[in-house]
Amino acid sequence: MSDAFVSKLVQQKGEKIILLVIDGLGGLPDRVAGKTELEAATTPNLDRLAKKGALGLIDPVAPGVTPGSGPGHLGLFGYDPTKYEVGRGVLAALGIGFELQEIDVAARINFCTLDGDGNVTDRRAGRIPTEECERLTALLDKIDIPGAEIFVRPVKEHRAAVIFRAKDLGDHLNDSDPQATGVTPLAIEPGDGSSEETARLANLFVDEARKILANEEKANGVLLRGFARFRPLPSFRDRYGLNALSIALYPMYRGVSRLVGMTIQDVKGKLHSLFEAVTAHYNEYDFFYVHVKDTDKAGEDGDYQAKRKAIEEVDRLVARFDDLPEKVLIVTGDHSTPSQMKAHSWHPVPILINGRLVRSDAAMSFGESACATGSLGRFPAREILPIALAHAGRLRKFGA
Amino acid sequence: MSDAFVSKLVQQKGEKIILLVIDGLGGLPDRVAGKTELEAATTPNLDRLAKKGALGLIDPVAPGVTPGSGPGHLGLFGYDPTKYEVGRGVLAALGIGFELQEIDVAARINFCTLDGDGNVTDRRAGRIPTEECERLTALLDKIDIPGAEIFVRPVKEHRAAVIFRAKDLGDHLNDSDPQATGVTPLAIEPGDGSSEETARLANLFVDEARKILANEEKANGVLLRGFARFRPLPSFRDRYGLNALSIALYPMYRGVSRLVGMTIQDVKGKLHSLFEAVTAHYNEYDFFYVHVKDTDKAGEDGDYQAKRKAIEEVDRLVARFDDLPEKVLIVTGDHSTPSQMKAHSWHPVPILINGRLVRSDAAMSFGESACATGSLGRFPAREILPIALAHAGRLRKFGA
Repeated sequence: MSDAFVSKLVQQKGEKIILLVIDGLGGLPDRVAGKTELEAATTPNLDRLAKKGALGLIDPVAPGVTPGSGPGHLGLFGYDPTKYEVGRGVLAALGIGFELQEIDVAARINFCTLDGDGNVTDRRAGRIPTEECERLTALLDKIDIPGAEIFVRPVKEHRAAVIFRAKDLGDHLNDSDPQATGVTPLAIEPGDGSSEETARLANLFVDEARKILANEEKANGVLLRGFARFRPLPSFRDRYGLNALSIALYPMYRGVSRLVGMTIQDVKGKLHSLFEAVTAHYNEYDFFYVHVKDTDKAGEDGDYQAKRKAIEEVDRLVARFDDLPEKVLIVTGDHSTPSQMKAHSWHPVPILINGRLVRSDAAMSFGESACATGSLGRFPAREILPIALAHAGRLRKFGA
Repeated sequence: MSDAFVSKLVQQKGEKIILLVIDGLGGLPDRVAGKTELEAATTPNLDRLAKKGALGLIDPVAPGVTPGSGPGHLGLFGYDPTKYEVGRGVLAALGIGFELQEIDVAARINFCTLDGDGNVTDRRAGRIPTEECERLTALLDKIDIPGAEIFVRPVKEHRAAVIFRAKDLGDHLNDSDPQATGVTPLAIEPGDGSSEETARLANLFVDEARKILANEEKANGVLLRGFARFRPLPSFRDRYGLNALSIALYPMYRGVSRLVGMTIQDVKGKLHSLFEAVTAHYNEYDFFYVHVKDTDKAGEDGDYQAKRKAIEEVDRLVARFDDLPEKVLIVTGDHSTPSQMKAHSWHPVPILINGRLVRSDAAMSFGESACATGSLGRFPAREILPIALAHAGRLRKFGA
């Protein structure tokens, strides 16, 4: 099935869909009890939803592939991540609300610390505070290189974004980040003819930035990563007929939502505010994407118990959806982040779907082992949206 | 795997294959016992076949897609229904044995009742008897419009078919059926340049029909649906090396069989005659497609118990296959029709495969929950034929 096949069947009516993404949800069993973080967590609400729902395991991108957050989310949103590649630079710019134009090439900036020989001593400049980042990006935003408009914007801590705007800029460029300390940043080399001008601009930008930052104690250099030209994707509305609201605290996830045309809800603060936003705007939208970050963070930190607790907090909050009428609820993750690995992984991710027309299966709790026996089987994440639309009554019959 | 990959491996020997299609087989659990129609049915024979066989769940077209009977069957026959789209008009014409030529555009006719203002009062003309349909189509068959040959043939009750034969007729046309009463039939509009002539012919045909039927009490108008040009598919013989017999009572299923080059067995009357036809012609063919309609009808009527009973009747009859030697038996459906929904649905359909070389699994009875744990997993229906051919010893090893 092509990604777009389902679009022909979409009808503009039906129940609502909530996609709750627990970032890095999947894990590995610990060596003592043989349970993953999700299986060890006390999750009466998710188990209740699982009991009446159908379970399975998803491959976010493809079997064996460990996804970054961008591809992981594209899969969840129904876009084949092997066909739609979106660079980190574009995601960063979108995530902070920068209005990219179709000629723009964006890259991520990491402020870094360089020693007297120009070698990197800290790839994150001691994680400078966000206020520092804002002060420094304001300085860099003044860099003027003939032949292009250049925009520099703060993201968070040592992270920022740079956008090069000029006609016909290619985006086949290596990162300048050497991914190591004790060595100099890499020169940015073009990978094709159309990227030669972009490389010229980027290397000049790095030189200018170094001059401007020369007297900074920590952030006296910049590393550029994830060059990417902005190519908007077919929107959620065009593809699925859905008026979609994105509810996420972090720029990255707002960025990927913006890429598919979702409205971005301005949420701040604690996790419960995300769940409250669904209730508050329930009548205004057809589709709600809710993103929980803490699970992934705990997994990346290698903190099994913190991940378990983060899942338990989600479990308490998910009960707030109980009284919302006429809905299909999907709970899953954009990838696995086993705390044993302190990193994203390729392991398939648990998924549950709950709703009026779900054919419930024998699986009785929400966990990796139960999901392996669920009736949804193991399937590519990009099939989630068609399945959700069907259960919400939003797809017409195909053929006579 | 491309649809045709398997063709390269086919060899002209091996066991026989019986594909028993229980229309609309899949269901949803009832609210009391939590069992689907299939799970509630007493099915000792199917359970015995399941015990020694392998189980799974199929997606007839694609996850989330609710198939019409045409696409549902194409999937079962191994043709990707998203690539091979066949209109209802073509299926109807093929189903009554009309020999379509490659220039023909066919449409379904529903006789309808119109009031004095030309508004539809009954979209099925009170379901006139088939004899009436035959009388009226004989009248309409005489309609003569310069520029094309026109054929009108009865199907059943209020249903008929019309075939327009002329060079270069397009088939991008809307239905004239307004899908509602109290309104006039829709004008037939061309969707592209090559369909303009077809639209002209079709609208003239509707006008002429109305004149001829003016004095009929019930069937005084016609509604046209499902315009489709005839494009034959690669045949079962070319693709799979199979000499195939289709055993179905209803025109629709004969039609889709003819589309892939099966021989059509003339069966009439009760369900047991279908099973007897397999036995009677067992030595003459390699492949037998047997179609049971009653389950789908009961599902569409919302009659859980009737669907359960229809499954139990199939269970009694399937024992007649026990003594047929050297065979692979597949039991499945072309889609789900949960009686709770009174309609086709997207839910995956139970499948069992039984034969000498089947690797039997732990699933012990034939039902949705058991199939969810079966060793075949959840897979696209178009993979059934390759699996069946393999078990029948009809595929060579691929590569050295």
